[in-house]
Amino acid sequence: MTQWSDWLTAQAEARDRAGLTRRLRSRPVDDPTIDLAGNDYLGLARDPAVTRAAADAALAWGAGAASSRLVTGTLDLHAELESELAEYLGQPAALVLSTGYQANLAVVTALADRTTHVLSDAHIHASLVDAVRLSRAQLTVVPHSDIGAVVTGLEAAAAAGERAMVLVESVYSVLGDAAPLRKLASLCLEYDALLIVDEAHGLGVHGPGLVASLELAGLPHVVVTATLSKSLGAQGGAVLGSVALREHLVNRARPFIFDTALAPAATAGALAALRQLIRRPELADVVRERVRELADALGVAAPAGAVLSLPMSSPDAAVATQAAAASLGLRVGCFRPPSVPDGISRLRVTASAGVGEEDWRRAVVTLVDLMKEHQ
Amino acid sequence: MTQWSDWLTAQAEARDRAGLTRRLRSRPVDDPTIDLAGNDYLGLARDPAVTRAAADAALAWGAGAASSRLVTGTLDLHAELESELAEYLGQPAALVLSTGYQANLAVVTALADRTTHVLSDAHIHASLVDAVRLSRAQLTVVPHSDIGAVVTGLEAAAAAGERAMVLVESVYSVLGDAAPLRKLASLCLEYDALLIVDEAHGLGVHGPGLVASLELAGLPHVVVTATLSKSLGAQGGAVLGSVALREHLVNRARPFIFDTALAPAATAGALAALRQLIRRPELADVVRERVRELADALGVAAPAGAVLSLPMSSPDAAVATQAAAASLGLRVGCFRPPSVPDGISRLRVTASAGVGEEDWRRAVVTLVDLMKEHQ
Ligand SMILES: Cc1ncc(COP(=O)(O)O)c(C=O)c1O
Ligand SMILES: Cc1ncc(COP(=O)(O)O)c(C=O)c1O
Repeated sequence: MTQWSDWLTAQAEARDRAGLTRRLRSRPVDDPTIDLAGNDYLGLARDPAVTRAAADAALAWGAGAASSRLVTGTLDLHAELESELAEYLGQPAALVLSTGYQANLAVVTALADRTTHVLSDAHIHASLVDAVRLSRAQLTVVPHSDIGAVVTGLEAAAAAGERAMVLVESVYSVLGDAAPLRKLASLCLEYDALLIVDEAHGLGVHGPGLVASLELAGLPHVVVTATLSKSLGAQGGAVLGSVALREHLVNRARPFIFDTALAPAATAGALAALRQLIRRPELADVVRERVRELADALGVAAPAGAVLSLPMSSPDAAVATQAAAASLGLRVGCFRPPSVPDGISRLRVTASAGVGEEDWRRAVVTLVDLMKEHQ
Repeated sequence: MTQWSDWLTAQAEARDRAGLTRRLRSRPVDDPTIDLAGNDYLGLARDPAVTRAAADAALAWGAGAASSRLVTGTLDLHAELESELAEYLGQPAALVLSTGYQANLAVVTALADRTTHVLSDAHIHASLVDAVRLSRAQLTVVPHSDIGAVVTGLEAAAAAGERAMVLVESVYSVLGDAAPLRKLASLCLEYDALLIVDEAHGLGVHGPGLVASLELAGLPHVVVTATLSKSLGAQGGAVLGSVALREHLVNRARPFIFDTALAPAATAGALAALRQLIRRPELADVVRERVRELADALGVAAPAGAVLSLPMSSPDAAVATQAAAASLGLRVGCFRPPSVPDGISRLRVTASAGVGEEDWRRAVVTLVDLMKEHQ
């Protein structure tokens, strides 16, 4: 064990020298800090109806599903969630997986092979990047939201007579901007290509997501992936599209087939959150108003989603500001290399509807002060 | 959308022609069938202490962790589970991920790159196969448990002066046999290679797993992965090894970094199951006795784990026998291509300690009759 331990040591030293070592810190159940760092955009993770549904499901069904979906792990609960999710998002069918990460791996690897051309936006999530690598497809990374570059890639695929797929997020997780979905959908139609839209940060904040809001849901060339772990406050992921697509995934997607089904509590929690989301559209209004309010107060442009992304001068400045916020009882996120596609460190502030009104006021004032000092 | 829909149709037709189309069937909460198909080996998924812990965690912490582990998603619950898991398995450190699938992706992709030689057993799980592909390492598939072939591969890596990694399961999920772990561990020591052992089917059935039982736990060149979704009755995965390894994963493993933390209910459920497992070692005895009893009754060799794997003459014969069992109130699993590495269809029968004594007696008699008729 000298080669491997030497290698681990060298890697750790390189991280330390670059100031990029990250450590886990755990939080207690009664954590008093105001959480502006997580992705519980609508505050549904702790909504009493949602936690009660999750708890009841654990008691009734068990702590786990005990099997993969194709063996005996598919519960009526999964079927219910899939049918209500599909209906809300305006899609013919949905398939639930145990994480959003695996939903992205599943759809790309089951559809793309070495002959497929994948045009992937420079800012797509790591799970989609890994999915393309795993699929061994021919990858072209397209500059962020560059329609011209997408056209060039689609032309190339058409010239080769090969299937093409475009990968985007509806609302980008780091930059917070929206993809030009209408243009992309019409281009994909024109070039007979598939558009895969990750709604991780769009679902909930924009009700059924941007694909549905723009009336692109149900088009056979537009496929949606989603996570149950952000606005839906639980855990898991989903792929939404045609019945034929769902059948294909059930039969071919290895991250679906070779994985234990989503646990009952997470499934029921997401289902209860979905129902809250439908019943209480004002939750999404609160988030969108808050993010606009905070952006105005900080003098920056409002993002398309619930997250404000504030570029900082260096990884150190980002970390220092985050620590200053923490000392004032505010938890904000911090993006540093290697988790930012463009290498720019950022603070990441979530305008969650789950924060109480008074805490929210205090948070806005505190953040304005901090950014004046530290930017 | 003609290219893509034509392709989906052609794929579906090919599956249908080969008789390999699979469909999901969901089960109701009060399903009366005897479940001999799942992986809840010790019956802990529905143990009252376990479901109560899962429910309480959902109520106290929320339905989801609301964030990735490095942002604000690490709960005291995760830390507790990691410390008790590591202690029970005799390892310096543990890292919990949201699925066993992602635990395998994480450890291999964070450690292996294009220069790494991976020697992977022909029967390792799909998640490890995908992990190697994603890592882009130099892969050699070794015939099942062929020590000579492992030596040849290690020699080649040593000659090239490059790091080598051997991938095995402690108890294989399809064949049910055990890996020659002692030999593999001493070979890896000799050649300065890393041995990664997936204990998905060993943990619980063999108490802390085969690595610990063989006193190989804590050796710096032996890394363990586990799932929380089988004997621990919940959902999730874990990687166990040195503190340096854990730190490396926290900083480099994309399926850990870019994924929402494991939900509170699953985390607490697995923790409660672990405590039951430790307090009630007789649970593992029951499983091992039952699997021996069933093997004797069927006149086949007893496997190393909780699962009896019964080769059938064809995919159709396997499906027909499974259906006959179902009509008699018994749910057994069925492996068909493409989920069997060697293409041989099999029935898969789990000797779970969770089945009541009377049901178990009936199951044994029924299976003996069925196998006489159908094999
Ligand atoms: C855009 C995007 N896609 C997918 C995921 C993965 O989802 P999950 O955390 O449910 O695995 C995330 C975040 O975690 C994300 O931000
Ligand atoms: C050997 C093995 N490893 C890993 C896994 C994946 O674990 P999980 O279902 O928790 O993702 C499984 C089964 O699902 C398995 O059988």
